[in-house]
Amino acid sequence: MSPLDQLIHHFSKLPGLGPRSARRIVLHLVKRRDVTLQPLIDSLEQAMTKVCTCSDCGNLDAADPCSICNDARRDQTKICVVEDVADLWALERSGAFRGLYHVLGGTLSALDGVRPEDLRIGSLLRRIEELNIGEVILALNATVEGQTTAHYVAERLAEQPVVVSHLAHGLPVGGELDYLDDGTLMTALQSRRKSA
Amino acid sequence: MSPLDQLIHHFSKLPGLGPRSARRIVLHLVKRRDVTLQPLIDSLEQAMTKVCTCSDCGNLDAADPCSICNDARRDQTKICVVEDVADLWALERSGAFRGLYHVLGGTLSALDGVRPEDLRIGSLLRRIEELNIGEVILALNATVEGQTTAHYVAERLAEQPVVVSHLAHGLPVGGELDYLDDGTLMTALQSRRKSA
Repeated sequence: MSPLDQLIHHFSKLPGLGPRSARRIVLHLVKRRDVTLQPLIDSLEQAMTKVCTCSDCGNLDAADPCSICNDARRDQTKICVVEDVADLWALERSGAFRGLYHVLGGTLSALDGVRPEDLRIGSLLRRIEELNIGEVILALNATVEGQTTAHYVAERLAEQPVVVSHLAHGLPVGGELDYLDDGTLMTALQSRRKSA
Repeated sequence: MSPLDQLIHHFSKLPGLGPRSARRIVLHLVKRRDVTLQPLIDSLEQAMTKVCTCSDCGNLDAADPCSICNDARRDQTKICVVEDVADLWALERSGAFRGLYHVLGGTLSALDGVRPEDLRIGSLLRRIEELNIGEVILALNATVEGQTTAHYVAERLAEQPVVVSHLAHGLPVGGELDYLDDGTLMTALQSRRKSA
């Protein structure tokens, strides 16, 4: 395979890309190689050598412990449990949470053979004890797998002296009733709150 | 900026990608860095050092002259003029043409300040003379810029002893009349051919 075909092949395997978009990207890179290709190589090499997984929370960052675990200004009594690093980043972007995180690294799945010991549940229990955590927020996806995992984690935490909470389910902001699925409507109705 | 943010920034500037898809790709790469990140770096470096522009036709390849110009089995009497390397690759994939190519490197544009001397028209005239070309196929995009450029190139070739042709315009294969624009329908009707 020629270097170009090989590069297109590599790009086409990235999530969300196919052969056509990969070709377009490779042409863009190769045509302006000094201003686009070389900086991308440098940046990838930086990521290759510097980025590591935080041994406390499981976040990906250039430092271990990561900048979130290391930030003394954050609320050290709350821990937010997420499935994946992408979820952690999404919550950070929202700016709604200023406590600590814990990345489970997936969801329980009998089908894919993911057992509780494959997730970072043991280290979650250790951190809760060591850091004297007061509240654990289960911010898992509102999917069957996410909710099954949340249920399991909540059970494991039942004997701990912590408040366990989960994200509210309901209408997304900007959502129109007409376009929402029955499950969301039902949950939103059941979890209705008194207007102030 | 952290190495991860920098990498996301670089990916988000690639054609067809935005911050969200870039984040997804970067997470994918960093999580499985030995199997995805390192091969991508190697492949990019190969492209950086090995890929060059063919000084004859303007194609991008690992050799100069490129594998197409170097292939003696191809028809050396026909030359197909395209705007961009991407167009050359598209024609090659179709397998419909077995002659030589010539990449203009863009289209004439008063707005963007692209003048005839900015395109590879001089080298096209030289090649036609040197290679004793019999037919020049103008395979430019069916856009206003593409057709303006085709018109200009055809004029420049008027005094040369070559047949100048262009791609047929009409219904795309699989196209439904109801979904086609008026311009295409008009061209298809005007260029109608007697059924055999």
